[in-house]
Amino acid sequence: MTNQHTEISTLGEFGLIDHLTKSFKLEQSSSVKGVGDDAAVLRYGEKEILVTTDLLLEGIHFDLTYTPLKHLGYKSAIVNFSDIYAMNGKPQQITVSLGISKRFSVEQLEEFYSGIKLACAHYGVDLVGGDTSASLTGFTISITCIGMADKEKVVYRNGAKENDLICVSGDLGAAYMGLQLLEREKAVFKEAESVQPDFAGKEYILERQLKPEARKDIIELLAEQNIQPTSMMDVSDGLSSELLHICKQSNTGCRIYEDRIPIDYQTAIMAEQFNMNLVTAALNGGEDYELLFTVPLSEHERISELKGIKVIGHITAPSLGCYMIARDGTEIELVAQGWNSLKD
Amino acid sequence: MTNQHTEISTLGEFGLIDHLTKSFKLEQSSSVKGVGDDAAVLRYGEKEILVTTDLLLEGIHFDLTYTPLKHLGYKSAIVNFSDIYAMNGKPQQITVSLGISKRFSVEQLEEFYSGIKLACAHYGVDLVGGDTSASLTGFTISITCIGMADKEKVVYRNGAKENDLICVSGDLGAAYMGLQLLEREKAVFKEAESVQPDFAGKEYILERQLKPEARKDIIELLAEQNIQPTSMMDVSDGLSSELLHICKQSNTGCRIYEDRIPIDYQTAIMAEQFNMNLVTAALNGGEDYELLFTVPLSEHERISELKGIKVIGHITAPSLGCYMIARDGTEIELVAQGWNSLKD
Repeated sequence: MTNQHTEISTLGEFGLIDHLTKSFKLEQSSSVKGVGDDAAVLRYGEKEILVTTDLLLEGIHFDLTYTPLKHLGYKSAIVNFSDIYAMNGKPQQITVSLGISKRFSVEQLEEFYSGIKLACAHYGVDLVGGDTSASLTGFTISITCIGMADKEKVVYRNGAKENDLICVSGDLGAAYMGLQLLEREKAVFKEAESVQPDFAGKEYILERQLKPEARKDIIELLAEQNIQPTSMMDVSDGLSSELLHICKQSNTGCRIYEDRIPIDYQTAIMAEQFNMNLVTAALNGGEDYELLFTVPLSEHERISELKGIKVIGHITAPSLGCYMIARDGTEIELVAQGWNSLKD
Repeated sequence: MTNQHTEISTLGEFGLIDHLTKSFKLEQSSSVKGVGDDAAVLRYGEKEILVTTDLLLEGIHFDLTYTPLKHLGYKSAIVNFSDIYAMNGKPQQITVSLGISKRFSVEQLEEFYSGIKLACAHYGVDLVGGDTSASLTGFTISITCIGMADKEKVVYRNGAKENDLICVSGDLGAAYMGLQLLEREKAVFKEAESVQPDFAGKEYILERQLKPEARKDIIELLAEQNIQPTSMMDVSDGLSSELLHICKQSNTGCRIYEDRIPIDYQTAIMAEQFNMNLVTAALNGGEDYELLFTVPLSEHERISELKGIKVIGHITAPSLGCYMIARDGTEIELVAQGWNSLKD
């Protein structure tokens, strides 16, 4: 045992996992891709098997003060499905393990599982395993999702090429603004319990935070159109952070355009009310569960016509770095300010 | 949301999972077996894919006061491998997700991962994914293991037939006695910090608690000998509890013999010192990670000759119930007193 004490925050979440797993080599012939993408890729027979896992901890990833348990169950499943779609796969099975404090009742767990069940029904996924255990502290949720993909269809983070178009589905920053709203109302409620929150006109951003969807529809649309992305990941930590992952792993740079970033009007109004920079929220907010992907320049016309997908920029040579072109033409370097639970 | 509040302890761990998942049906053609065995079974192409997952929580499943982090990493991996062997499969890949409190250093996590790595190297398993997150409370470990098996070789809990022989590998109760010893020394140390524990002559039970192994060797031995068990599971919650699972799922009864239960002499000495009933410890102690399995009566001669495997009884008609024949010939009904973290 060593006596050194290096603070974890010096490495950050991604640095930490890289550091801890760098000495592990893949030895099994069935292991195609290990740590470092949205899901691991395994080869058993004809199909590629995708495996992703998420650990959600009370107080870090969710707040039961304002999160209904059914929604939490739904979201816990969705975030895993999203990782499988981000590999261009189809989620097939999940396992759900829970750490439960004694204050929970059977009825509350039923609520949670009803959300899991709804998500499984919507996305065509089977619950195949898991367990429950006591927890001395908060509610702990661990979900693993198994997906399937044709061998030649799996999309990694490292396939972006110079001149590829950068695309994103849906809109960004809404889940983050929904979270800000919920946190504000929680604080208000603490001060004066009689004040009931008024969420009228803010339904969209609340739903994006509390009951997000995974973009099965976009994956199906791309398949129908026979468009194969060159790289892809889901936007869970914020567009800026994810784009830097793709560029780093693909050894490229990028340019995105501020005026192309898709933002819903409710997100914009909320940012205004909170006096927050709207583009910062869209770039770094996280929990959007949209798909960020690149396609060859030759697909420009076809991809531009697809509903729900926006071309926001292009991939460059690595020497050009990663920048956003602001509305006034200035270049702003992209930094990974994304949600990082290991920093203070 | 319902206002009812049913205490979780009224259902217990297995009752709870059954209750929560009973309305889930398997819809995907790739889902062969869901909740209710050591691992889920999926069919993708020629091979069966096995998936198992374990959530380990500080204060519930381990105590960092006396558990070295390297050992904890090793054991966390092993308990998952054991579930795959219990299906007659071979573990191939694992994912490791951690919830980490701020008091942890990078060096401590390196220790933990060095244990994971050692286990992976010993058992020929690849680490392929996972993540780290902050935890507001204790250290949280979530591991998922993927295994592989030939279609016709997978062994479930529900295949035991009347007259089958009940077999167990290794010996039982040692890990439990090791835990008792560690708990005692922890209490002593709290009283008087200068008193150093004396573990001489108790190495075996400590190793069984702190650094257990999964029975890869037994699975390989059975395969070499071309002996196909009719049912199997690993002994994690105690022999009594596991045997009741097999009998319930196979719709059978059983008889085991007290004088055939394999127990190491260190376990016996420790039980004597603690004034504990030795057979109770062996039946209900848990964390043995031995294999409990049944084979047809026709295999009696061959199985009896195999080193490290003991025939402890036989399967009966369901109407005869589940009993242990004590040394004095009395029949004692088996009850699941196994470790149940959801009870007080």
